[in-house]
Amino acid sequence: MSEQVKTAVIGASGYSGMELLRLLLQHPNVEIVAVTSRQLAGKTLADEFPRFRGIGNADTLKFTAPDAQGIRDAGAEIAFLALPHGVSVEYAKPLLDLGLKVIDLSADFRLRDPQIYKEFYAHEHPAPELLKEAVYALPEIRAEEIKKARLIACPGCYPTSILLPLIPLLQGGLLKDDPIAVSSMSGASGGGRKESVPFLFCEVTNSLRSYSVPVHRHLSEIGQELNLAAGHRVPISFVPHLVPVHSGICTTIFATLRQGFEIEHVEEALQKAYGDKPFVRLLGRNKSADTKNVEGTNFCDIGWADDERADRLILMSAEDNIGKGAAGQAVQNMNLVCGFAETAGLLRV
Amino acid sequence: MSEQVKTAVIGASGYSGMELLRLLLQHPNVEIVAVTSRQLAGKTLADEFPRFRGIGNADTLKFTAPDAQGIRDAGAEIAFLALPHGVSVEYAKPLLDLGLKVIDLSADFRLRDPQIYKEFYAHEHPAPELLKEAVYALPEIRAEEIKKARLIACPGCYPTSILLPLIPLLQGGLLKDDPIAVSSMSGASGGGRKESVPFLFCEVTNSLRSYSVPVHRHLSEIGQELNLAAGHRVPISFVPHLVPVHSGICTTIFATLRQGFEIEHVEEALQKAYGDKPFVRLLGRNKSADTKNVEGTNFCDIGWADDERADRLILMSAEDNIGKGAAGQAVQNMNLVCGFAETAGLLRV
Amino acid sequence: MSEQVKTAVIGASGYSGMELLRLLLQHPNVEIVAVTSRQLAGKTLADEFPRFRGIGNADTLKFTAPDAQGIRDAGAEIAFLALPHGVSVEYAKPLLDLGLKVIDLSADFRLRDPQIYKEFYAHEHPAPELLKEAVYALPEIRAEEIKKARLIACPGCYPTSILLPLIPLLQGGLLKDDPIAVSSMSGASGGGRKESVPFLFCEVTNSLRSYSVPVHRHLSEIGQELNLAAGHRVPISFVPHLVPVHSGICTTIFATLRQGFEIEHVEEALQKAYGDKPFVRLLGRNKSADTKNVEGTNFCDIGWADDERADRLILMSAEDNIGKGAAGQAVQNMNLVCGFAETAGLLRV
Amino acid sequence: MSEQVKTAVIGASGYSGMELLRLLLQHPNVEIVAVTSRQLAGKTLADEFPRFRGIGNADTLKFTAPDAQGIRDAGAEIAFLALPHGVSVEYAKPLLDLGLKVIDLSADFRLRDPQIYKEFYAHEHPAPELLKEAVYALPEIRAEEIKKARLIACPGCYPTSILLPLIPLLQGGLLKDDPIAVSSMSGASGGGRKESVPFLFCEVTNSLRSYSVPVHRHLSEIGQELNLAAGHRVPISFVPHLVPVHSGICTTIFATLRQGFEIEHVEEALQKAYGDKPFVRLLGRNKSADTKNVEGTNFCDIGWADDERADRLILMSAEDNIGKGAAGQAVQNMNLVCGFAETAGLLRV
Repeated sequence: MSEQVKTAVIGASGYSGMELLRLLLQHPNVEIVAVTSRQLAGKTLADEFPRFRGIGNADTLKFTAPDAQGIRDAGAEIAFLALPHGVSVEYAKPLLDLGLKVIDLSADFRLRDPQIYKEFYAHEHPAPELLKEAVYALPEIRAEEIKKARLIACPGCYPTSILLPLIPLLQGGLLKDDPIAVSSMSGASGGGRKESVPFLFCEVTNSLRSYSVPVHRHLSEIGQELNLAAGHRVPISFVPHLVPVHSGICTTIFATLRQGFEIEHVEEALQKAYGDKPFVRLLGRNKSADTKNVEGTNFCDIGWADDERADRLILMSAEDNIGKGAAGQAVQNMNLVCGFAETAGLLRV
Repeated sequence: MSEQVKTAVIGASGYSGMELLRLLLQHPNVEIVAVTSRQLAGKTLADEFPRFRGIGNADTLKFTAPDAQGIRDAGAEIAFLALPHGVSVEYAKPLLDLGLKVIDLSADFRLRDPQIYKEFYAHEHPAPELLKEAVYALPEIRAEEIKKARLIACPGCYPTSILLPLIPLLQGGLLKDDPIAVSSMSGASGGGRKESVPFLFCEVTNSLRSYSVPVHRHLSEIGQELNLAAGHRVPISFVPHLVPVHSGICTTIFATLRQGFEIEHVEEALQKAYGDKPFVRLLGRNKSADTKNVEGTNFCDIGWADDERADRLILMSAEDNIGKGAAGQAVQNMNLVCGFAETAGLLRV
Repeated sequence: MSEQVKTAVIGASGYSGMELLRLLLQHPNVEIVAVTSRQLAGKTLADEFPRFRGIGNADTLKFTAPDAQGIRDAGAEIAFLALPHGVSVEYAKPLLDLGLKVIDLSADFRLRDPQIYKEFYAHEHPAPELLKEAVYALPEIRAEEIKKARLIACPGCYPTSILLPLIPLLQGGLLKDDPIAVSSMSGASGGGRKESVPFLFCEVTNSLRSYSVPVHRHLSEIGQELNLAAGHRVPISFVPHLVPVHSGICTTIFATLRQGFEIEHVEEALQKAYGDKPFVRLLGRNKSADTKNVEGTNFCDIGWADDERADRLILMSAEDNIGKGAAGQAVQNMNLVCGFAETAGLLRV
Repeated sequence: MSEQVKTAVIGASGYSGMELLRLLLQHPNVEIVAVTSRQLAGKTLADEFPRFRGIGNADTLKFTAPDAQGIRDAGAEIAFLALPHGVSVEYAKPLLDLGLKVIDLSADFRLRDPQIYKEFYAHEHPAPELLKEAVYALPEIRAEEIKKARLIACPGCYPTSILLPLIPLLQGGLLKDDPIAVSSMSGASGGGRKESVPFLFCEVTNSLRSYSVPVHRHLSEIGQELNLAAGHRVPISFVPHLVPVHSGICTTIFATLRQGFEIEHVEEALQKAYGDKPFVRLLGRNKSADTKNVEGTNFCDIGWADDERADRLILMSAEDNIGKGAAGQAVQNMNLVCGFAETAGLLRV
């Protein structure tokens, strides 16, 4: 592709969509040629998101109703799908058929096994043939496949914060088969920008609580990728919490080192995996990751500790759930797909 | 004691002290006869805490410099110590010698073993003989001892939220010896009301982070009480997090049920332990505890879930860190010591 | 009435309704015999508001669909209407006809003049005859009328914070006829507990903004009462702002002292009006009112300052918008109607 | 100057300093060659501000103790002073003498008249000769002078939000001489990043309050500039409020249109003044400005409304207090001084 890519954003009315627009509007190699939203059709980007006034083409580009041919006609080479789960799949196929590359932020193409999809999403996957083709696109782990892919499934927000610390350790055989326990906290943007009582300001502020216990849907993709990394089934218990911040995920992981491995091996494995990766920042031993340092960015910060008293390894990560956990990672994947610098438009704090 | 008890609050300038004053000012059986704070001496309660204007004797009662004899002379029968760790011990002995009962909110008298104190607090305990006498005062667990005690050591905020769900299960032998993993989130009032950069509004808002990893001092008392309940050493890994709320602790516990025990046995054990306890509310299976429902109260809410996929029991609790986790529990203990209704002045939302 | 009054709450699903339930559940002279909400019918109070578990009859009392006769049959002597504007009027008449006293928290009965109602609410008032009977129930100003009333119109949240500081000054002739400028900030609970995008956590946090500029509906009742106090039309400009707190209103008023009056006369007038009123706390000269001190209470705090450089009097007030600005004031009015102590169930912080 | 300027930041430990570093680290034409802070000397930028890890030279550049010659030796051509009021003046003179241009974010050089300085800051100005030379650097108003200046006094945060809407109206003679009333709300970053109880998270969250009533120091510069614009003394009453957001200022202004002027003239005057200015966004009539849209940016958004009922013009502005109100404006001024595009490094959302 050329130095300037024409992109479309399908379903850009939510928080991930808004963050994606923010990044694309300021990306040196991107021209946004179409944005779609049934409910916002006719409004400009700046009408709906006054923050974008005066930036790029936000004052003139209008939302349109979603239509694959129209998107193609607008010149789009790449389409981002920032749609709810179950809706992306409807748009992916026609767009692929029209020759676009598709970067999906939903869960629709993250699982390889349609049975697991059915188990977690309670209905048959409507396009199982696409599951085979789609790449589960963690760029730090799977860059080469991403570069060649037509259909990019961006990982979920929680999974990104959990997989990045764990995959190198499982790949290296550092962890025992004991169940791993994961506690994550997420900002309210994870709940979406839609009419809702539980996500009203007054319901969320002054509130700390877990939800979706004991089974959150993200467990399906977390399990898939951990098992793949380990080469066997990895039992994992995952409890997400909603806390009163706009965005950010802070994840704390309790695992057990296999006999013969020490905390120094953890550092080595992480260093080897991420030492040259621009968006994973290794904080060091006994260093906690703080979402305040990654909010609005594409970074994932990781720290680690050895709890000798309980024979437990503790891993701590922080990312922006709509940044590295969604829109930032999608743009990072686009950079790979287009052959741009991996950091183009993303190395910002 | 009579239906009206005269109390003193030593060191009432912090958030727990403020909450304690709030509860005592409105307690039907309490008269506050002395409040001390070196730095606030001469100011009335209402001067320092304008919220209290017009309530009880807040407009007239003045802070004085702390002085055991003066407190006794003011008629105090019970003294609350809302002092930093390491300072309470200086005041406890003279007050006890003068015949007062002492309810301490600090960590100074929570441990039975001076060696463990030294391990976690990095100096010799200055009054080890008092450790023998002090009662670790979880009123739901140890009411009879509390009623007879002279020196009451109120449990820490995190420990209360961790011990209440776990003790009945350990006492009942429901849990395997596998390490227990605990992730807690606390509001910023836990950091104290003192000059500090890390607890500035701008440092805390939009920030989610763990701290004191891998060893938080509260592990000492948590371990002591869990071991006591189980009858053997219980390995536990504990990670506290700071999140942007004023007050509240939300705790998530990962444990393993012993062969032969099911989630129904968990419910039974909790029901048996707390069914008649006014301040523990059992929410039910797969029910998350939300700090919003307990903030400003003396309740601890508890839910539980069976994560079959990873063979883990999940326990979820919520309390107010300066309420049931500090000042509320202190007043509940006072009610027991004085023979008042356990709920006097506390059954409020 | 007796020492125990039986009350019903109509439409108790919003934030004011929830605060009203909180106060009534803990009121020493109140028994709640009916709560209605079409959408919550069949649930207990504690089901919907888990905070209330274990308090009064919250675990057993169930929401029912609203029905005047059913409310009467439940024994209710007083009905609180915590309904949206335009809906209260439908319930008030049948309840009055059945002999209940009605305390309305909506705007339906606040205006004396149906023409002004039509101007601000864009339709004819459906029961203008009730406007004549209703009392605009600021208890500090109109206690005697309230005691004798059948139909109580509780003032709006913003109006309470504006009228309390201004009425004594206008009654005393202290202010010039220059337009008064008022800037208020309110917490998000003022937006209601209903599905909505603009009041989502992520839309409100980190946001400061005015709204309803230049004409907010509350101007109608503010104008009515200021004109009444002054004996002539008082021009007033009012700009409300939404800020990221759960509850609280902070109001700043710019007015001009009439020739011959000094700041000391302001203090005298306020002292004379409120010196013996339990819920207005006069803070003093150059003292700012802080919502943190009144949140969850029925207090309105007032400060004042003389800006000599610009020849302006500045008045500053703070209240809880769902407390003194809604539910607290409603209970205060109930206390007056029932002959209870004015502070019964309300003198709490 | 060349396309790349070497800059130093003196006193970069506060929120404005941190924001300045953030902007400079990512500015295409800037190299930071020195940062000073007595208390942080020896730490890298990334050590103190982990958010900056991996950005520019943040991982290697170390804080040094402030020293004019050292800064010059490091090659700095421009020095930003992000110091407390009263401290900047000590550094400005030696730096100017060494040939650097100085951009000061403090209040030290904002006033032309040393008498007014003394009135508001309670001591003699230590370098009155520099007051004559310094430019009060509102780039939308005074770009030509700024381009030629050696000593740039960046306007205060509140003043920027007040002056931008008012200056064109006063210059155009649209406003009556009636006192103008201004109510502003600011985030807590305005209070600084220093040890303090009143700015603790628990003191600020859930709190809305005015402060510095009736005289805030910023009145001195506001008055200076308004008088200059009007050609005569403009009486103004100003009340700032502290609200629980990290950053952002929302300002609401009540003024009176002179006979013969209508709201359309207001729009014309603002359009004429700012239609071609990249950082002032005119929102339109009855449009409220929202800090959420300007947080982290260099924009100032302005709306206006005609309150006919009270014969008042209402102006509404929003900016980021540490962005356009401090660091952003400082960089905008640097761009002018260096002959860069005015928007270089600043057109970001």
